Amino acid sequence: MDNFIANNPTSLHFGKGVIETIGKTVKPFGSKVLLVYGKGSVKKSGLYDRIIAQLNEAGATIFEFDGIQPNPLVGDVDKAATIGRENKVDYILAVGGGSVIDSAKIISITIPVEHTAWDFYEYKAKPLTAVPLVAVLTLAATGTEMNPFAVLQNPVTGRKDGYGSPLCFPVHSFLDPEVTYTVPADYTAYGIADLIAHCFENYFGKGDCSLSDRFITAIIADAMEWGPKLMNNLHGYDERAAIMYDATMALNLMTSHGKSGGDWGVHGMGHILSLLHGVAHGASLSILFPAWMKLLNERAGKQIAKLGTDLFGNPDVDATIAKFEEFFTQIGSPVHLSQVGIGEDKFEEIIRLMIRNKAEGSNYKLSEADYRKIMEFAK
Amino acid sequence: MDNFIANNPTSLHFGKGVIETIGKTVKPFGSKVLLVYGKGSVKKSGLYDRIIAQLNEAGATIFEFDGIQPNPLVGDVDKAATIGRENKVDYILAVGGGSVIDSAKIISITIPVEHTAWDFYEYKAKPLTAVPLVAVLTLAATGTEMNPFAVLQNPVTGRKDGYGSPLCFPVHSFLDPEVTYTVPADYTAYGIADLIAHCFENYFGKGDCSLSDRFITAIIADAMEWGPKLMNNLHGYDERAAIMYDATMALNLMTSHGKSGGDWGVHGMGHILSLLHGVAHGASLSILFPAWMKLLNERAGKQIAKLGTDLFGNPDVDATIAKFEEFFTQIGSPVHLSQVGIGEDKFEEIIRLMIRNKAEGSNYKLSEADYRKIMEFAK
Repeated sequence: MDNFIANNPTSLHFGKGVIETIGKTVKPFGSKVLLVYGKGSVKKSGLYDRIIAQLNEAGATIFEFDGIQPNPLVGDVDKAATIGRENKVDYILAVGGGSVIDSAKIISITIPVEHTAWDFYEYKAKPLTAVPLVAVLTLAATGTEMNPFAVLQNPVTGRKDGYGSPLCFPVHSFLDPEVTYTVPADYTAYGIADLIAHCFENYFGKGDCSLSDRFITAIIADAMEWGPKLMNNLHGYDERAAIMYDATMALNLMTSHGKSGGDWGVHGMGHILSLLHGVAHGASLSILFPAWMKLLNERAGKQIAKLGTDLFGNPDVDATIAKFEEFFTQIGSPVHLSQVGIGEDKFEEIIRLMIRNKAEGSNYKLSEADYRKIMEFAK
Repeated sequence: MDNFIANNPTSLHFGKGVIETIGKTVKPFGSKVLLVYGKGSVKKSGLYDRIIAQLNEAGATIFEFDGIQPNPLVGDVDKAATIGRENKVDYILAVGGGSVIDSAKIISITIPVEHTAWDFYEYKAKPLTAVPLVAVLTLAATGTEMNPFAVLQNPVTGRKDGYGSPLCFPVHSFLDPEVTYTVPADYTAYGIADLIAHCFENYFGKGDCSLSDRFITAIIADAMEWGPKLMNNLHGYDERAAIMYDATMALNLMTSHGKSGGDWGVHGMGHILSLLHGVAHGASLSILFPAWMKLLNERAGKQIAKLGTDLFGNPDVDATIAKFEEFFTQIGSPVHLSQVGIGEDKFEEIIRLMIRNKAEGSNYKLSEADYRKIMEFAK
């Protein structure tokens, strides 16, 4: 087992009605808040009004930044940080899914500095302090609500990258499963695929900690139990709650304790599909992970077999991969590139960007030939 | 799933050599430290000297309180708090197992007040602030290193009770598996029994959260894999590390998320065996839990069967209980009262105190007749 420091400072407020406790929770931070959200679905669902009521109850002066994109842009982060800086906001309230909360994390460390947000991603600058961040999650998927990571896209450099700092943990996160009732079937499925992919990334990471691997298997098993139930009952509280909690635990650092972090090769490759062809993040992962496992059969066969044994009572690698493909198909997340309209004529450009952006992973490093084989398996 | 707030502020420093990072970690707290430890085994092992070297490196002025008992006494807590108060210590460094760290938690909230520590246990007073607590764990068992609970014994009232406050989390805990090499076989086994018992208490608690139950099962499985390996190799790093991490995760609040807390009836009963007959805590639990399960077959049969299925691939309740008895016997923790010298002539006094101290549990409430049957099963 590798040495590790376990610390997660986020307070996770989970359950029915927790939105109504936001007001009293944010009050101690001060009066000026930067409210960050996306493209207006929070207004349609009525969540926006409930949040505003809570902020009014807390006596807040509200500055807003809306319009964060599903694949969030670093330019928006810089614009929002300027608003926060000029108005000397006391805290940030981010209402949305991974894209909004990830953006808000980087806004929170960009407000106190003079340079652009992307400087953090290029390690030209280190964050020294952060404006406190409170998050309200509307989509179960990325785990951003209880971790220090943020993925942003930079159209200028043609990159989509992850960044992490201990300063980027939300101070409070509010997770009411009822808020996710309005997430449509496709994005519900992509969220499930995303959380399972996070489990895979850490499972196939470097290092050896049997308890972390057992926790990972527990989360996958839970998501595979509740996922199909949820797809049959999008307004089911127990179903939404189970998947929402699964997603949080799938990427809140716990599953990599005693290991040296995850592999993240498939995430790197998935980001390329999103960048070039706008594939939803979770969809890119349900396509690429089974293909990656097929390639990795020789190198990671023992690990895949263990997963098969623990989840399905069968150590056969091919059968295990087939089970995952079946599962993704059952919930409605694609497993072939053709399902998202990516034909073989697009492969060379995709592979070129995988090479350029080093989508190789950290444990089972991928070569150009590997990318080619994975694309072939995934076609 | 019940609503919950998940927050654990402790920083857990886990692994080989982490003791050598204590100095730089404690420095920011100030210069005056109250060093709390037990009966001198930390001096024999050389750990005391390593800690003193770290404190000297941090430029600390050291006030000491030693002699915390294995079943820690509230009187010692009051005495230590007086030393801390009179010398205006900036932080507490507790070096030991559950008894020392539990005592230090209550010392940390007693220093700032004028009343005795037991007032917290009788809910006559609420803690308002705490002196920061740093812990160095020497025994894998109770999980105190990453939770807000403390069990103390009061000889005057004849009670052994648990208390918890969010102020009682250690700020930092240092867990070096090598430090536990010198724990003798019997206490190593009792620690394993204790951590598995914590899993049971939460598993059989009120409420329903499939992921928490899966995490619990994962920890039990891990301890049942590594426990016998450790008993065969008391100086094995991987074995010590696995059990140490299992013990932390078994009671750091995570396993009760989405549930309404554990049952804790068996712990209540176990405390009576310790109070009246000095039975080691873990030993009391390996004796009483199988007996409790035999009684609870009718009321909790489905839960026991699920545990049997997930751990042993067999839903038979009797077979599941037999497996646990075999396991405890294999590692050297007792499963019969006769093994710790408690004959049937002692039963009435024990049962009387179980009734008086309300050792009934919170989910499957035990009656006097139940205590009697459990003692009979455990004899």
